Amino acid sequence: MAKLVLIRHGQSEWNLSNQFTGWVDVDLSEKGTEEAKEAGRRIKKAGLEFDQAYTSVLTRAIKTLHYALEESDQLWIPETKTWRLNERHYGALQGQNKAEAAKKWGDEQVHIWRRSYDVLPPLLSADDEGSAAKDRRYANLDPRIVPGGENLKVTLERVIPFWEDHIAPDLLDGKNVIIAAHGNSLRALTKYIENISDEDIINLEMTTGEPVVYTFNEKLEVTDKVKLSK
Amino acid sequence: MAKLVLIRHGQSEWNLSNQFTGWVDVDLSEKGTEEAKEAGRRIKKAGLEFDQAYTSVLTRAIKTLHYALEESDQLWIPETKTWRLNERHYGALQGQNKAEAAKKWGDEQVHIWRRSYDVLPPLLSADDEGSAAKDRRYANLDPRIVPGGENLKVTLERVIPFWEDHIAPDLLDGKNVIIAAHGNSLRALTKYIENISDEDIINLEMTTGEPVVYTFNEKLEVTDKVKLSK
Repeated sequence: MAKLVLIRHGQSEWNLSNQFTGWVDVDLSEKGTEEAKEAGRRIKKAGLEFDQAYTSVLTRAIKTLHYALEESDQLWIPETKTWRLNERHYGALQGQNKAEAAKKWGDEQVHIWRRSYDVLPPLLSADDEGSAAKDRRYANLDPRIVPGGENLKVTLERVIPFWEDHIAPDLLDGKNVIIAAHGNSLRALTKYIENISDEDIINLEMTTGEPVVYTFNEKLEVTDKVKLSK
Repeated sequence: MAKLVLIRHGQSEWNLSNQFTGWVDVDLSEKGTEEAKEAGRRIKKAGLEFDQAYTSVLTRAIKTLHYALEESDQLWIPETKTWRLNERHYGALQGQNKAEAAKKWGDEQVHIWRRSYDVLPPLLSADDEGSAAKDRRYANLDPRIVPGGENLKVTLERVIPFWEDHIAPDLLDGKNVIIAAHGNSLRALTKYIENISDEDIINLEMTTGEPVVYTFNEKLEVTDKVKLSK
């Protein structure tokens, strides 16, 4: 009976300033740091012990993981970082204030970009400033898979191979796993784990810093789901 | 021309209280935290970019690594933790105040335990309180290799397989590597890298929080050694 804990990173500085973030490597805000530590305290109180940690290559998720592990006395567990758990890439919207984007493109268009399952945002090209293609952390990726912008469908398609190759084998092996990641990479995992429809997944909200605990049986079916709320 | 950076963790709470620490998982002091961040700033100033990080399974080294990486904007690099980079296990001396130990066993005996290359300290048995055999983080180790106390010779003998299997292949592959570890596991690495005698290695002091930067040629010979001092 393996357990999987998902945590969405605490508030970031750009959540606070209402900017589209995506793959921009923004730090946690002070509140976000406290949310991550509080998640760790709840994990400790619940007696959860992990064998493996996964996170993205973005600082706000990595730090959330580290605070949560440190507060629950298990900073020493193995940790693997992967771009496959990154936030959805928000294309040319990255860095823009959400209210200003709505003025520029209209409320309805921005709503579609934010809430549709399969509509892509305006894309960044590899030459554009802020392109992931210029970032050393993605230098080992085939340039054809470095995104210039993603919808939730594309995000899911690059998250799930990591589930198949790493997370699912760990759980089937009886290991307890913790994942600290982002609103949309966690939506993608949740959709896949709970078999949620394309329409319904868009309305799923992941609360920042609130650990979601799944229990799986030996067929990798969910037998229990609990949120560690206050 | 690969680079290897060694950092001894910043001051811990037990460095401060003058206790033998070894494998006891003591946190960094406030000063130690600041030393780790300062190491990161010096790394950033030196323009050092890493491909791989290694550390022990002890919180004070892990946190030193994380602070140094965060301050140099590379918290996202791959990180592997291993018991093989742990501090020397100090056996039954762990937790004892160094001055009190000197009163109990005599100055000379304690000096021998601290400074000889191949004399073992009084050992802990697997049943003793504080034994590593009771710690979940060593549960996957063959019980025959979980130490009850080590000298520098034994420490070196368990550090070097990790050099051979991981660090040396990375360097030969042209990767830049950072290692955050402990006074004695770093002495062991330094002895091996610089071919220092059993007699001389005992007098080598590693300064806490001071990055030591080696450059290697393609035959894994040291071509340069620099300390990033203030």
